[in-house]
Amino acid sequence: MGKGEATRERILYMAARLAAREGLEGLSLAQLADSLGVSKSGLFAHFRSKQELQLETLRAFSTRFIAEVLRPAFAQPRGLPRLRAVFANWTRRTLDRSFPGGCLFMAASIELDDREGPARDFLVQSMRDLLGLLSRTARLAVDEGHLRKDLDCDQFAFEEYGILLGLNHALRLLRDPNAERRARDAFDGLIRASISRS
Amino acid sequence: MGKGEATRERILYMAARLAAREGLEGLSLAQLADSLGVSKSGLFAHFRSKQELQLETLRAFSTRFIAEVLRPAFAQPRGLPRLRAVFANWTRRTLDRSFPGGCLFMAASIELDDREGPARDFLVQSMRDLLGLLSRTARLAVDEGHLRKDLDCDQFAFEEYGILLGLNHALRLLRDPNAERRARDAFDGLIRASISRS
Repeated sequence: MGKGEATRERILYMAARLAAREGLEGLSLAQLADSLGVSKSGLFAHFRSKQELQLETLRAFSTRFIAEVLRPAFAQPRGLPRLRAVFANWTRRTLDRSFPGGCLFMAASIELDDREGPARDFLVQSMRDLLGLLSRTARLAVDEGHLRKDLDCDQFAFEEYGILLGLNHALRLLRDPNAERRARDAFDGLIRASISRS
Repeated sequence: MGKGEATRERILYMAARLAAREGLEGLSLAQLADSLGVSKSGLFAHFRSKQELQLETLRAFSTRFIAEVLRPAFAQPRGLPRLRAVFANWTRRTLDRSFPGGCLFMAASIELDDREGPARDFLVQSMRDLLGLLSRTARLAVDEGHLRKDLDCDQFAFEEYGILLGLNHALRLLRDPNAERRARDAFDGLIRASISRS
């Protein structure tokens, strides 16, 4: 990695942290420059506009999320082990206090739902990809004989993501000490219901 | 209702709509005055500060949500009919295109999770009350013999709210035409699992 690329990555890491707290619209180049100890013109050398910075921040977050949360789970055997690992890693990331602003994608999903533009388009595509991945992971568990043959895997993905949204809400807004247990119990219930017809 | 009170209510209705789209921080007195066709100083006669406007906007939204979504459901017989009516009314409200910004509470939950202050405190208390209400509605269904005796009703409420968050996400960010069906199927599954142990 060249020096320019490393700097760019450091900027985007900080930008994702700020944006998760303050929103992508609240992401000011001045505040970002301040947090990084660089000049505003130094930032402009990397990003031509705030819009480009927002888009690249989402893109970098996505790359990191895949590398840190999803890829390790995909090292698990296909079927239930991998399905559980995806959920466990995602939960662990949500609980990780070294990301004080929480999940940028969940925050941006609310912020950008009414804001047309390249940042929204990127987020929508990323969320579709993520839900598609949850669905395919369930499909593999069906193929392995771990989940029932007639399972609606897109429905499974919808419900799994709902649990993760509920976890994020209980943890970050309500600071509910039972949040993690609630999410784990909900996911266990979803798996039980996906093994046999209740 | 006096004239002053009616004006105040009209202001807060518009404020809730703007805040659901632009965020509570994005709620500018100038833009609000513009939308209402009144002067900025006219607004200041009603709210001494932006902070007070934010808090009162949340409060008014809560009052309206209770009156329009929850109260009609509570006219249903206790037990499953009421439980289903709460979910159905909430879903209908989420789908209602006359609220283009979506649910102010869900939007504010993300925006305020890191912002200490009276608006956050009010929202946290309101959300605890709402989840408590979902839980007690499930408890009544247990008492009526509609749901199983050992049901964890707080867990039920957590899962029900997760489905509503998933609906909001699928509908407003993804514009998924299947969002409503997915949420309804998820809730039916939750009820099935709450009747008998799967």
